Amino acid sequence: MPESNMKKDVISGEFYDPQKRPRFNEIASFMRAPVAESLDDVDIGLIGVPFDGGTSFRPGARFGPRGVRQQSCLMRTKSHFSDIAPFELSKVRDLGDVFIDRMYNIEDAHACIERYYQEIGARNIMPLTVGGDHSITYPIFKALAKDGPIGMVHFDAHTDTWDSLYGSKFFHGAPFRRAVEDGLLDPHCTIQIGIRGSEHSGTPNFSLECGMRVIFIDEFDELGVEGVLKEIKRVVGDGKTYISFDVDGLDPAYAPGTGTPEAGGITMREALRMIRGMRGLNLIGGDVVEVAPELDPSGITALNAATLMFEMLCILSEARSKQAR
Amino acid sequence: MPESNMKKDVISGEFYDPQKRPRFNEIASFMRAPVAESLDDVDIGLIGVPFDGGTSFRPGARFGPRGVRQQSCLMRTKSHFSDIAPFELSKVRDLGDVFIDRMYNIEDAHACIERYYQEIGARNIMPLTVGGDHSITYPIFKALAKDGPIGMVHFDAHTDTWDSLYGSKFFHGAPFRRAVEDGLLDPHCTIQIGIRGSEHSGTPNFSLECGMRVIFIDEFDELGVEGVLKEIKRVVGDGKTYISFDVDGLDPAYAPGTGTPEAGGITMREALRMIRGMRGLNLIGGDVVEVAPELDPSGITALNAATLMFEMLCILSEARSKQAR
Amino acid sequence: MPESNMKKDVISGEFYDPQKRPRFNEIASFMRAPVAESLDDVDIGLIGVPFDGGTSFRPGARFGPRGVRQQSCLMRTKSHFSDIAPFELSKVRDLGDVFIDRMYNIEDAHACIERYYQEIGARNIMPLTVGGDHSITYPIFKALAKDGPIGMVHFDAHTDTWDSLYGSKFFHGAPFRRAVEDGLLDPHCTIQIGIRGSEHSGTPNFSLECGMRVIFIDEFDELGVEGVLKEIKRVVGDGKTYISFDVDGLDPAYAPGTGTPEAGGITMREALRMIRGMRGLNLIGGDVVEVAPELDPSGITALNAATLMFEMLCILSEARSKQAR
Amino acid sequence: MPESNMKKDVISGEFYDPQKRPRFNEIASFMRAPVAESLDDVDIGLIGVPFDGGTSFRPGARFGPRGVRQQSCLMRTKSHFSDIAPFELSKVRDLGDVFIDRMYNIEDAHACIERYYQEIGARNIMPLTVGGDHSITYPIFKALAKDGPIGMVHFDAHTDTWDSLYGSKFFHGAPFRRAVEDGLLDPHCTIQIGIRGSEHSGTPNFSLECGMRVIFIDEFDELGVEGVLKEIKRVVGDGKTYISFDVDGLDPAYAPGTGTPEAGGITMREALRMIRGMRGLNLIGGDVVEVAPELDPSGITALNAATLMFEMLCILSEARSKQAR
Amino acid sequence: MPESNMKKDVISGEFYDPQKRPRFNEIASFMRAPVAESLDDVDIGLIGVPFDGGTSFRPGARFGPRGVRQQSCLMRTKSHFSDIAPFELSKVRDLGDVFIDRMYNIEDAHACIERYYQEIGARNIMPLTVGGDHSITYPIFKALAKDGPIGMVHFDAHTDTWDSLYGSKFFHGAPFRRAVEDGLLDPHCTIQIGIRGSEHSGTPNFSLECGMRVIFIDEFDELGVEGVLKEIKRVVGDGKTYISFDVDGLDPAYAPGTGTPEAGGITMREALRMIRGMRGLNLIGGDVVEVAPELDPSGITALNAATLMFEMLCILSEARSKQAR
Amino acid sequence: MPESNMKKDVISGEFYDPQKRPRFNEIASFMRAPVAESLDDVDIGLIGVPFDGGTSFRPGARFGPRGVRQQSCLMRTKSHFSDIAPFELSKVRDLGDVFIDRMYNIEDAHACIERYYQEIGARNIMPLTVGGDHSITYPIFKALAKDGPIGMVHFDAHTDTWDSLYGSKFFHGAPFRRAVEDGLLDPHCTIQIGIRGSEHSGTPNFSLECGMRVIFIDEFDELGVEGVLKEIKRVVGDGKTYISFDVDGLDPAYAPGTGTPEAGGITMREALRMIRGMRGLNLIGGDVVEVAPELDPSGITALNAATLMFEMLCILSEARSKQAR
Repeated sequence: MPESNMKKDVISGEFYDPQKRPRFNEIASFMRAPVAESLDDVDIGLIGVPFDGGTSFRPGARFGPRGVRQQSCLMRTKSHFSDIAPFELSKVRDLGDVFIDRMYNIEDAHACIERYYQEIGARNIMPLTVGGDHSITYPIFKALAKDGPIGMVHFDAHTDTWDSLYGSKFFHGAPFRRAVEDGLLDPHCTIQIGIRGSEHSGTPNFSLECGMRVIFIDEFDELGVEGVLKEIKRVVGDGKTYISFDVDGLDPAYAPGTGTPEAGGITMREALRMIRGMRGLNLIGGDVVEVAPELDPSGITALNAATLMFEMLCILSEARSKQAR
Repeated sequence: MPESNMKKDVISGEFYDPQKRPRFNEIASFMRAPVAESLDDVDIGLIGVPFDGGTSFRPGARFGPRGVRQQSCLMRTKSHFSDIAPFELSKVRDLGDVFIDRMYNIEDAHACIERYYQEIGARNIMPLTVGGDHSITYPIFKALAKDGPIGMVHFDAHTDTWDSLYGSKFFHGAPFRRAVEDGLLDPHCTIQIGIRGSEHSGTPNFSLECGMRVIFIDEFDELGVEGVLKEIKRVVGDGKTYISFDVDGLDPAYAPGTGTPEAGGITMREALRMIRGMRGLNLIGGDVVEVAPELDPSGITALNAATLMFEMLCILSEARSKQAR
Repeated sequence: MPESNMKKDVISGEFYDPQKRPRFNEIASFMRAPVAESLDDVDIGLIGVPFDGGTSFRPGARFGPRGVRQQSCLMRTKSHFSDIAPFELSKVRDLGDVFIDRMYNIEDAHACIERYYQEIGARNIMPLTVGGDHSITYPIFKALAKDGPIGMVHFDAHTDTWDSLYGSKFFHGAPFRRAVEDGLLDPHCTIQIGIRGSEHSGTPNFSLECGMRVIFIDEFDELGVEGVLKEIKRVVGDGKTYISFDVDGLDPAYAPGTGTPEAGGITMREALRMIRGMRGLNLIGGDVVEVAPELDPSGITALNAATLMFEMLCILSEARSKQAR
Repeated sequence: MPESNMKKDVISGEFYDPQKRPRFNEIASFMRAPVAESLDDVDIGLIGVPFDGGTSFRPGARFGPRGVRQQSCLMRTKSHFSDIAPFELSKVRDLGDVFIDRMYNIEDAHACIERYYQEIGARNIMPLTVGGDHSITYPIFKALAKDGPIGMVHFDAHTDTWDSLYGSKFFHGAPFRRAVEDGLLDPHCTIQIGIRGSEHSGTPNFSLECGMRVIFIDEFDELGVEGVLKEIKRVVGDGKTYISFDVDGLDPAYAPGTGTPEAGGITMREALRMIRGMRGLNLIGGDVVEVAPELDPSGITALNAATLMFEMLCILSEARSKQAR
Repeated sequence: MPESNMKKDVISGEFYDPQKRPRFNEIASFMRAPVAESLDDVDIGLIGVPFDGGTSFRPGARFGPRGVRQQSCLMRTKSHFSDIAPFELSKVRDLGDVFIDRMYNIEDAHACIERYYQEIGARNIMPLTVGGDHSITYPIFKALAKDGPIGMVHFDAHTDTWDSLYGSKFFHGAPFRRAVEDGLLDPHCTIQIGIRGSEHSGTPNFSLECGMRVIFIDEFDELGVEGVLKEIKRVVGDGKTYISFDVDGLDPAYAPGTGTPEAGGITMREALRMIRGMRGLNLIGGDVVEVAPELDPSGITALNAATLMFEMLCILSEARSKQAR
Repeated sequence: MPESNMKKDVISGEFYDPQKRPRFNEIASFMRAPVAESLDDVDIGLIGVPFDGGTSFRPGARFGPRGVRQQSCLMRTKSHFSDIAPFELSKVRDLGDVFIDRMYNIEDAHACIERYYQEIGARNIMPLTVGGDHSITYPIFKALAKDGPIGMVHFDAHTDTWDSLYGSKFFHGAPFRRAVEDGLLDPHCTIQIGIRGSEHSGTPNFSLECGMRVIFIDEFDELGVEGVLKEIKRVVGDGKTYISFDVDGLDPAYAPGTGTPEAGGITMREALRMIRGMRGLNLIGGDVVEVAPELDPSGITALNAATLMFEMLCILSEARSKQAR
């Protein structure tokens, strides 16, 4: 491991490879990456956004960053599948959690998150985020899409393009409608995968109406992973693309610890093959959201989220290093 | 939603759509349906049978109706796959739980259950039941099959056509042998799906002997969901058909909260495709049994059971509305 | 049991005593009380307020009403200690949950709650509430104290008289400061019991400053239950008194399922003796708050909350029947 | 340890002290005692009765013997308090579980249990039993009290002297009424400790009516452990006395894994002091019942039950060795 | 069931078929097999090795044998798929757990294990083992491979052919490198299935280097179960073959209770088809390792492990009976 | 809060009071203290020792530091009882975890720990440690007692003065015998509180033999907290004193997540009063050990451990500031 991704021993003052210490050792940072002391000279920032004020059913995703930090110590340094070693390619830092100083109001909270990602963007740091509920992706997009709408590969049980609920347009079921309305997200470069669950009769599907490609779980079964990957590539092309993975896209057997689980979802083997298959896209960031660890006594939700995050880190670091050239 | 499926607000006295309230709000009824005040003018009755006195290993299915009521608040009003909106088609009511006044004796308990379903039948209400252990389907059949034997699509890890155990012919491993013996169930119109687990040497398989179609899990693997659906349709034809789904038919990863889990079962994606695929059968009722929520701290067993129940409701309501014409 | 507190059987149309059915039977209402069909002719309303938008650490109290409904089926009809049989004295109804139509904003949510309790008050119904986080007591007070400030017996680990946090003056740590400021709560008739936990240096204690009687846990140890009861009676006298019991007042061994547990609290034996000892006060209502059942796999938090609620119901029904005379 | 209480190593054929092996080693028997190969030459039999067919709320006590066997490996060989070393005084054997061949019918099951204990009694083996629900103590008494009614020290939240429920006189709330009616139990030599919980209005208390000494939890608080011990000794005198400990006598914080928990019970420190304090009574057997391990993910219910069992074993073995002289 | 596999009733002294008793009855032995009193006349020994001193992340596999004994009571006596009835073919005994008298030192512990299996081998008993962590397979091989290197079918997420870690060459990530180095394991007759997870950059893969066939999970997806079975047969041929199943080879949804779970693994349906498909190989023993039951509140890890063990028992007993001819 | 105990914001570069951020925010350090970048200018070091290789029953204490870090975010900055504000008095740092590079061998691991604490001692940093199993206190004493034997206040269910077990003299039941033998611990200035549990017959009690003051739980009941505090002060006097708190000293209701729970222990209210009561002793350090968070799904073990740690920090910081003068 290059010294730039090493940690400093508090006793000896020397740098060491955190992978060479027991996984249960040390304060848990994302994938044992060094905790940033400043934003200087960071390629990829691993960021927690502990906000679940936009949840509509079971809260708890505010503990997602903590849960994923704990389980991510099981990650190592290279993907077997792609041979990508992200810590060789990029300077990776755990940037800690976004501090949301007005957490009781969604709009105020979103403003905090947006400001934070503006700072990240100003330093040209590629963000890889752990939520928090899905409402957080909207303010992230406000910062990321300042040069025009971006594309998205979106794994989820729900389209998250509903309209307002219980008085808020910014709850976790609406971020991508807001993003399309604001010109942050290009619906024609957006693909939603794994959508399922019962629907509300009489409610038009905004995703379909605005031109997103929606792969419901029954079509997913027909296409298979390879077919889905073809669709992903067709839809996002070589435009700037963000990956957003809501863990409720997974079947509840793989992610019981989430706020609005839906039966009959994606398996982890399928999910990992899809992420690996997106290698080569023009990626600008990603997130894993809706991890609520206290709702899952077995811990596999956070473990799976950490693994999704690691595989994203691999393809993001490759994209970042190409962009840097 | 038609007013007939709405609830009355206790403060204003006005009717409201329960789907428009937060899912964690209100006393939990099955799928947020109104709780029946009488049996008049009900098309489909959602019924709990909290009895697990027929269990042979881990008890706890008496809490199945409660657990499923809780999780079923996650259901909405229309199936994406079939476009069926059951609350538009039928007057659906939560009828509460069957009161079993002599619960310490299986035969007495079964008599209570039978009487209850006789009342339901007398009002021409189609029943969709949540157990309870699988022994409850036998008294339900006594009420449903009064005009002659019916057919059944049966999802389970076990055939439940064993003979008596520990002194009872009515325990939860025997209901369908009893039903065949009594002329309630037509074995030639019965298909059992997902059967697996080790067997007792030297014990003949009553299901096969009496002419049921048994799809063991290895044949299931070969046929695939589409092949199984063909077999279902071939076996039950257009005769009166009941669907009985024992959640131990699912793999324990999807239903850990059940009394006699068996490794290596059906996934929820497969299960949902099969239920949706039964659209158009001449359905007269259904049940989801053996949900023991206290044995599953993650809650996914009851969530999956609620989802199976919702998809059954869709195809049942369509069948009911056709029958009513 | 008088017929006025009985339930109607959906099959026979006859009234029955819900205590005569198995506890796991029927849709779970608070203490198996009938669910109100209107607000007419109700003495005591059992009310759920599923709101946890004011939480500062672990959310989940929105599921408090459901959890307590489930466990409260273990309650019977008479307190051994006082011989009070509340269902003999009062017409008791489960009024369901307050519908909070703008749940993402604390102030809007509080306005919903206040309106609801104004309706309750207008019908002269005595409320016994299950939260929800502690912020809900403030809007309840707005409705209850319309004729002048009331007194309170308050069990809690925290004074809940802090000022604003993260941008809100209405979060769950501040309701009683707001209530004093608004003239709803008379601090000289308020006693807080069980207060403990570390403090923030340099922060003055508003409770002490405004004249409340605060019994920290160390003084509680010295006084014993009898001594505390004397203090309660001295402080609240014969004025209108409300009881607010935050389950984090209990030791976490008795209430692990709560948002901000504090080590070293009250035992259930002490708590029950204190509630029973308040018999004869001029009581106008009460609540049990901060029950987060999903954080407690053993279920004892909701069981203990249900028991506190039952003992409150006993003394409230006696007070109500005296007031009615 | 005397060789008579040692186990035989399957490899070497030599006897070894099971306490000298790691506690997680070997097949779990009660307190690591040897498993009996016959009933010859046994002083104290540790017996499991895995029956919960008499339960009225949450079942699961059928797994009590397994759960207690697992946790009892934490026990050692001598009580510090009394200096009694039961394995020095008595030949102690795990006799396995009573085989109940007709488990779906309470009366049949009770007949199996009675026959088993008749065999035990015929060999003059003192029984120390783990249930199972409390209904099992009634058939045990049928075998033990064949020379006339016995006395009992009974720890419980409930009197278990109710009458029939849901059609059975033999459910777990009635064993001691049946035992008094049958002349097996002398109510004037019976003391019930820890009774609490709400009551059913209008139901007379059979325990008080027939002359038992009932120490409700509020009197328990007043008397203290020493006062209770005096009452125990006064009531049972030097007559033949059986100890029956229902773990729901403990506070739910100490025994969440039980079928009908009641808030506000006995602590383990109090319980252990009471058992130790009964040294010297004319004891003829004992039981620990209503342990439902699957309802307690932390495992402390079975651990506490095992510890109660060990302390009972100490005083029973002393009594047995005196009786043998 | 032949009397040789029956148990003796302690009361009557008669032999009985343990399958004829309730599964929750009796002291839990592996698959309800009789507990051996000596090593004479045993064909297949079911052995626990409660050692987890070689673990690198989460310990707890020392409780594997207990957990699997509990859950294995769900097994019956014949495999539907193969029609093999192992208790008809072989004398099967639960031999208890290996006593490890110096458990704090891996090398000493391994020496204990090796001595034990030398004794087993000397009696020509075929071992079927439940671990413990994977380090235990190395000393088992020392005893089994005394006539030359053996082949292995190895299911796992990890190759377990790493080198030393934190000062030990014998930790649970290295047994098969040690076995190859010592000439115990023939790498050309070794196939590793299900390997996945991130890797350490710059670390060569010893398995590939020494000639093992490694089927990573992505190749597994391509080959399918049938393709993998062909590879298994090609690699191990008719040489002596051992099966080692690390439950972390399963997806964490099927085995959350293990020390180093890896996302994206084998399903139980696939696993069972593979074990059944190995019928006819020249098998000499097998193990299921890394079951840590306390990390899995739902219990499915031990249930799945017990099922894998039963299916192994079927094919082992057939192999054993052929070898005996 | 003085700036010396603040954290630096990674975005703004400014220092902030960590108590002013939501408790679920940021990477979890002990009590939200800044993570040390070097050992310069630290008064009190909060240190994790994630080692459980000395455990005799249930392992898992290696995750103690992580679990306590998570729960310690609930701590604030001042003790109400003593008015001590440790962050005002001392420069407090989370020093991270001791890196144990040879973790599979107790003696090697202890050597790592000793070296670490020698470094801490050389900088005159007062250590407050979270284990890990109790064996870690022995190497800590090797570093702390280099100028002569020290005194100890020891809370525990066990004396931990046993001799070797399963081949090791350094397992977690022996540290204080070793410490006395090595002249590190003065038995006449040592008091052990809360000792209980069954004993091994025939084993002399080393603690009593060497002159320690042992307060078994029955004497604890007699003395009460005030009486115990008197004994503490009498025994340790004004000599250098270390506090070691094994969480199994608590009753299992308060600490289910530990390796060798013992029924009938200390309550948290008693424990906190004892720690506060030790104010003014000549304290040189302390530890909280045997926290195994994965064995406690409710999380209260780690919460209680964090609270014990905070109260220790208060009295340690006062002692440290006096010593510094």
